[in-house]
Amino acid sequence: MKIAIQGERGSFSHEAALQMVPSCTVVPCARSAEVFASVLRKRAQAAVIPIENTLAGPVTEHFDLLLEHPLFIQREHRLRIRHNLIAAPGTKLADVRRVLSHPVALDQCRNFFREHLDIQQVPFYDTAGSVKHVTEHSERDAAGIASKQAAIEYHAKILKAGIEDDPKNFTRFFLITPQQRWAADANKTSIVFSVPDEPGALFKSLAVFALRDISLSKIESRPVKGLPWHYVFYVDLKCGQTAASENALRHLREICPMVKILGIYKAGQ
Amino acid sequence: MKIAIQGERGSFSHEAALQMVPSCTVVPCARSAEVFASVLRKRAQAAVIPIENTLAGPVTEHFDLLLEHPLFIQREHRLRIRHNLIAAPGTKLADVRRVLSHPVALDQCRNFFREHLDIQQVPFYDTAGSVKHVTEHSERDAAGIASKQAAIEYHAKILKAGIEDDPKNFTRFFLITPQQRWAADANKTSIVFSVPDEPGALFKSLAVFALRDISLSKIESRPVKGLPWHYVFYVDLKCGQTAASENALRHLREICPMVKILGIYKAGQ
Repeated sequence: MKIAIQGERGSFSHEAALQMVPSCTVVPCARSAEVFASVLRKRAQAAVIPIENTLAGPVTEHFDLLLEHPLFIQREHRLRIRHNLIAAPGTKLADVRRVLSHPVALDQCRNFFREHLDIQQVPFYDTAGSVKHVTEHSERDAAGIASKQAAIEYHAKILKAGIEDDPKNFTRFFLITPQQRWAADANKTSIVFSVPDEPGALFKSLAVFALRDISLSKIESRPVKGLPWHYVFYVDLKCGQTAASENALRHLREICPMVKILGIYKAGQ
Repeated sequence: MKIAIQGERGSFSHEAALQMVPSCTVVPCARSAEVFASVLRKRAQAAVIPIENTLAGPVTEHFDLLLEHPLFIQREHRLRIRHNLIAAPGTKLADVRRVLSHPVALDQCRNFFREHLDIQQVPFYDTAGSVKHVTEHSERDAAGIASKQAAIEYHAKILKAGIEDDPKNFTRFFLITPQQRWAADANKTSIVFSVPDEPGALFKSLAVFALRDISLSKIESRPVKGLPWHYVFYVDLKCGQTAASENALRHLREICPMVKILGIYKAGQ
């Protein structure tokens, strides 16, 4: 199975894809929009995309892309984010003067940099890309911060494992495909909707779930592109496809100008 | 008045600060946490922070910092984000081979790069910082993308103004201070609360407003640090300090373990 990911081989998306579909081949894409395009143009059968990090928050661009494209959530996965200091073979920790990585990763390893004040932080476009860079250029005084998968991918060496400040660092990933096919053991539903511009509209919309004892696990308002200060709402429901949820969604469509089901799937453990 | 901002002088925060408090002096800080610390340690009387961009979404870190610190929203301001190609004096557009800027800014000027395929995009830590860099190093083949204020600040030249793809590009800024003092003409209230872990808890919480005809303009759930998959909710109410809103907030405190008023202020135009 070919799975499109954003970022280089060895990224956390690559790690998540291998855990979700162990025998998959990844198709690396530079931008998130290309990830979606790859699946729509059948260069990949599916994509694995990060949707939320427990520390950094939602990946808002992916919410927008899910709204805009006919791709649907099939499965959810929770990946423990473990940052590792990785360098070209032969480099020792004492040699390292510069550490390259994505700004979010650098920011999640502040304690390491506090203990190594002589090491300079260099923002880089990608975590795995930083390891690719230091190994391809055989840089002796530099290292990257990335997943274990990046060390495997670029035949590099882990100088220090688990340098993230907070071990409670997880990212939720979605496996998305063009099929609108819901799993029998689904226990989670993700939807997006817009509300009419009238007082209490959001409350009325949420009432369709509360009146049927359906709990929400998450709600997120996102600005509509091209329409400043107008919002769509992303909501996760704690239920699969049930009679109650079908009634609730029919009721929601009576109230809201736009309702899209992003997926009905099994929640990640 | 001294106002702390994140980023270099000449940033969009600097531009917003000057529009909100025309005679202010800015105190540039490298990190957002330092912006808050500067005000708390009285190195600045206030801070101006971006909170949401219409295209890129919320600045989630600032929501977290507002929750954690005793600083309160006094005013809101909406800034039109106009990206400009800026270079050292003497550099011509035809000389430019590399353009440095913050990845979000580069991403908002894709049409420019499509029309100039020979120009390389270089991710940089800061928009204004990119202009500072190219002028300080007198780089003849490079330019930055930043606010007009950056050109003024670093005595640089605007090679091309308004290169952003989407003119509907705005950022909301807050002026925050340690004073919990609400304006008489306030028409907006921002709060954050956590809900008990029981079905329908969020719906009950929102009912306290709907039952009193108070409209919500925005809702955002954010993960709680150190407690993965638990959320706090940030809500904006379309009202100032009224009898109804005071009753609603008292009612909310009956339901929710944590309620914090972030500010009661006049909405930005």
